[in-house]
Amino acid sequence: MKDILVVGSVALDTVRTPFGQVEEGLGGSAIYFSVVASFFTPVKIVAVVGKDFPEEHLNFLKLHGIDLKGLQKVEGKTFRWKGEYSYNLNEAITLETQLNVFENFHPQIPEDYRKVKYVFLANIDPELQGRVLDQIEKPHLVACDTMNYWIENKPEELENTLRKVDILIINESEARQLSAEPNLVKAARKILSLGPRALIVKRGEYGALYFTEKSMFSAPGFPLEFVYDPTGAGDSFAGGFLGYLAKTGNDNDSNVRQAIIFGSVMASFDVENFSIERFKNLTFREIKERFQAFNKLTHFEPL
Amino acid sequence: MKDILVVGSVALDTVRTPFGQVEEGLGGSAIYFSVVASFFTPVKIVAVVGKDFPEEHLNFLKLHGIDLKGLQKVEGKTFRWKGEYSYNLNEAITLETQLNVFENFHPQIPEDYRKVKYVFLANIDPELQGRVLDQIEKPHLVACDTMNYWIENKPEELENTLRKVDILIINESEARQLSAEPNLVKAARKILSLGPRALIVKRGEYGALYFTEKSMFSAPGFPLEFVYDPTGAGDSFAGGFLGYLAKTGNDNDSNVRQAIIFGSVMASFDVENFSIERFKNLTFREIKERFQAFNKLTHFEPL
Repeated sequence: MKDILVVGSVALDTVRTPFGQVEEGLGGSAIYFSVVASFFTPVKIVAVVGKDFPEEHLNFLKLHGIDLKGLQKVEGKTFRWKGEYSYNLNEAITLETQLNVFENFHPQIPEDYRKVKYVFLANIDPELQGRVLDQIEKPHLVACDTMNYWIENKPEELENTLRKVDILIINESEARQLSAEPNLVKAARKILSLGPRALIVKRGEYGALYFTEKSMFSAPGFPLEFVYDPTGAGDSFAGGFLGYLAKTGNDNDSNVRQAIIFGSVMASFDVENFSIERFKNLTFREIKERFQAFNKLTHFEPL
Repeated sequence: MKDILVVGSVALDTVRTPFGQVEEGLGGSAIYFSVVASFFTPVKIVAVVGKDFPEEHLNFLKLHGIDLKGLQKVEGKTFRWKGEYSYNLNEAITLETQLNVFENFHPQIPEDYRKVKYVFLANIDPELQGRVLDQIEKPHLVACDTMNYWIENKPEELENTLRKVDILIINESEARQLSAEPNLVKAARKILSLGPRALIVKRGEYGALYFTEKSMFSAPGFPLEFVYDPTGAGDSFAGGFLGYLAKTGNDNDSNVRQAIIFGSVMASFDVENFSIERFKNLTFREIKERFQAFNKLTHFEPL
């Protein structure tokens, strides 16, 4: 079974950048991840929305073949986030967060999701991430995200979860904070000692670094002429990365490197439009073409 | 003739980082460049020092086969720079600058330097850079650096010089400032329209980007466990880059990409110790090994 289970947030995002804005666009970590991963393999989503969640979004997700059995629809309003970016598109400024129904989210794993082999724990309370894992029978590969808030406020719960995780995917400042170590190579070593067998450090427009005990891989960000909205780039990266690993069913070093490039490809598409708009008309041919463009961008002859 | 002529500064640097410090260490753009480039090809230096410049440094430069005929020794004190870095090793804080003899530097090109084919104009007044070029008969390749101060205060002189330059090598914020354009791809296009046929954007620990009208290449910074002092990394990059191009006498795209990796290799060695210390016992075997390590770091299989 090559399906991926994702647990995370579904949001309505209001975002302003120097290049435009969107009001209550479809967003949230579970959305970006599942829309992107669905280009590669079937996805099952576990998340919560309120009664106000627009039907058109559900239809769009179904169109992408995303299994919505685990998407709870409960009394109340959907999670809303409002943010903006200045010309430094690497950093979001949060203007407003309304947790709404997300505040009391208790992930329920439907019976027929429990045999799933690939799991992505998007950035939610590490206690909930741990409880999700307890409900999965024998996952082959668990990847996980987190954020500064949980590193500060739930360090023990996070460490418990990390012991059960194969690949941690976090950004650069989070890696430094989690390890209390400014040097990334040392930070990686410390984090790998907490449980994960691999760490991916996301660096925004500068790309991503992958560390295991034996291997190191660097992928650049794709230099784009038009970047409209970086929201969701990290979860799009995770969706392309895990999507390709699940599709191919192979985690050797060579395949993982390709998966990181596919993650970078999908992140580069995400930022080209607001919300998940860029994925609405994206073709697999375009995905493969950008993969080749990454190859051209980084290739040099050995000596 | 595969020699490179470099015009730039020679300094005595006092630098403090979280990992140690050096008092009046050998430094300056012309020094980093020429010491590094001399691993690849013969170098001729045009610069100025004061009567206080230690003889041991001159001996070290001679030992590296660097031609010092263009190094003027004049009445007064050598240029001194004092700076420090915090844990964010990407940004230097200048504590003191004593221009001393560098203030009235008038580059004199010795007669037998005028037929040189490779020229590096390190970061000095663009008017002086232009006057140097007027004294070179028919250079094959001219590369040039500059800084925010000249972009702000001598924009016309800088534009005049850029018209005669083949490759501009500057850092990310300088590229944005020179083009008045936050997006790097657009910034590159604007800068290429000013004259250079190629632009290299240095991004500190994130590596370097190379742009021509037709090609784009991204090289990562090498993730190092010990970074002691980033001073001179940009000029070391330029030294490895131009050194390899001059040594091989070939500027096709494939060779330029390798040259950018050699530049990155030399920058990665530079930061491993203070001043030019790391280059004192560096072997060409180590240089080649790190080139291979860059290959391992970035390689992925095409689809």
